[in-house]
Amino acid sequence: MQQAGARRRGRMERGDASRQLILATAERLFAERGVAAVSSRHISEAAGQRNSAAVGYHFGSRADLVRALLRTRSEPIERLREEMVDRLGPDPGLRDWVACLVRPSTDHLAELGDPTWFARFRAQVITDPALRELAMEDSARSASLRRVVEGLRGCVPDLPEAVYEERRAMEVQLLVHGCADRERALADGRPTPRATWHDAATGIVDALVGLWQAPVSA
Amino acid sequence: MQQAGARRRGRMERGDASRQLILATAERLFAERGVAAVSSRHISEAAGQRNSAAVGYHFGSRADLVRALLRTRSEPIERLREEMVDRLGPDPGLRDWVACLVRPSTDHLAELGDPTWFARFRAQVITDPALRELAMEDSARSASLRRVVEGLRGCVPDLPEAVYEERRAMEVQLLVHGCADRERALADGRPTPRATWHDAATGIVDALVGLWQAPVSA
Repeated sequence: MQQAGARRRGRMERGDASRQLILATAERLFAERGVAAVSSRHISEAAGQRNSAAVGYHFGSRADLVRALLRTRSEPIERLREEMVDRLGPDPGLRDWVACLVRPSTDHLAELGDPTWFARFRAQVITDPALRELAMEDSARSASLRRVVEGLRGCVPDLPEAVYEERRAMEVQLLVHGCADRERALADGRPTPRATWHDAATGIVDALVGLWQAPVSA
Repeated sequence: MQQAGARRRGRMERGDASRQLILATAERLFAERGVAAVSSRHISEAAGQRNSAAVGYHFGSRADLVRALLRTRSEPIERLREEMVDRLGPDPGLRDWVACLVRPSTDHLAELGDPTWFARFRAQVITDPALRELAMEDSARSASLRRVVEGLRGCVPDLPEAVYEERRAMEVQLLVHGCADRERALADGRPTPRATWHDAATGIVDALVGLWQAPVSA
């Protein structure tokens, strides 16, 4: 019985290692070549799996693989955001809430260390007609994000609802595509306007504060 | 000789009609399914071409097809921007230059009439690692865009060069992804924050003026 248990644990650990390897390989290939351009068979092979159907075996459908990949990143980002929200003072302002939106993503990219692939992968997911829904599902699960979005809304009470929605969408675009642009420049060895993810986040926060405070034309 | 000339003209006109049909079909399929997910054979067939290699015959490589598609749209946008720049008063301000950047794209989308596919196609092109270069090639050809970019730079003379570059990239992201988001919502029958492309442009211009004027943190 003990032996059977050890064998089962061994299989589970190998299974988990395969899953991790497939996720890391998929993220890299998706970022570098485009999500739609990379087949599941190619991912299995590039991850060194003997069975070319390994992606399907471990993850199910293609959408399930993308979901698992998003969750791998959104969980640590969620923890960083919870910590940041908990550290907010008694009367947070617009800039504080915007920072709680931006810095968890950039801090996570910084802690992953160079090179990263997540930012380019995520930019494709929010742009691709077939994958967009999965990104929305993923962010809908975040409790801390809901708190931040509510806090931010409270700082711009006079903004008409339609303009608020419009700028909220712009905020997501700037964050996601801004990170992807920077990651791409790092990968290509091109110069970046900012030396670190921390400084890049400062640039995004500055811009977003200006965007939220911009007067609304009639 | 006259007959041969007429036959040649007939062939050329049919060739031109095929090219136009292939371009329109490619743009639609790219927007709806993703550029990388649609094969040239599929485009040829969906465009009703008897020869499934018609895309290659008329356009050459895949990159050439994307180039031709970008040019189809950038030429009328360029004309709209030239007219707008010519109409500027003697001392244009930041808001005028930002409008010259935004409105030619949204005005062209408005004149194409609903439904459009260009905005979603262009968003993929600037995000996809393999296609990004083609979008940059395309905008590098625009003389009016250079004038607008210089005019705008003159309105924010104190912005450090790195922050200027950073916000310039944000401006492109907001314009391109903002248009794509709106086009996608229209295609899906979802509500949009603004009723028309003209009003959507006003929202983007407002936000961009705020972004350019935002103070820079140390």
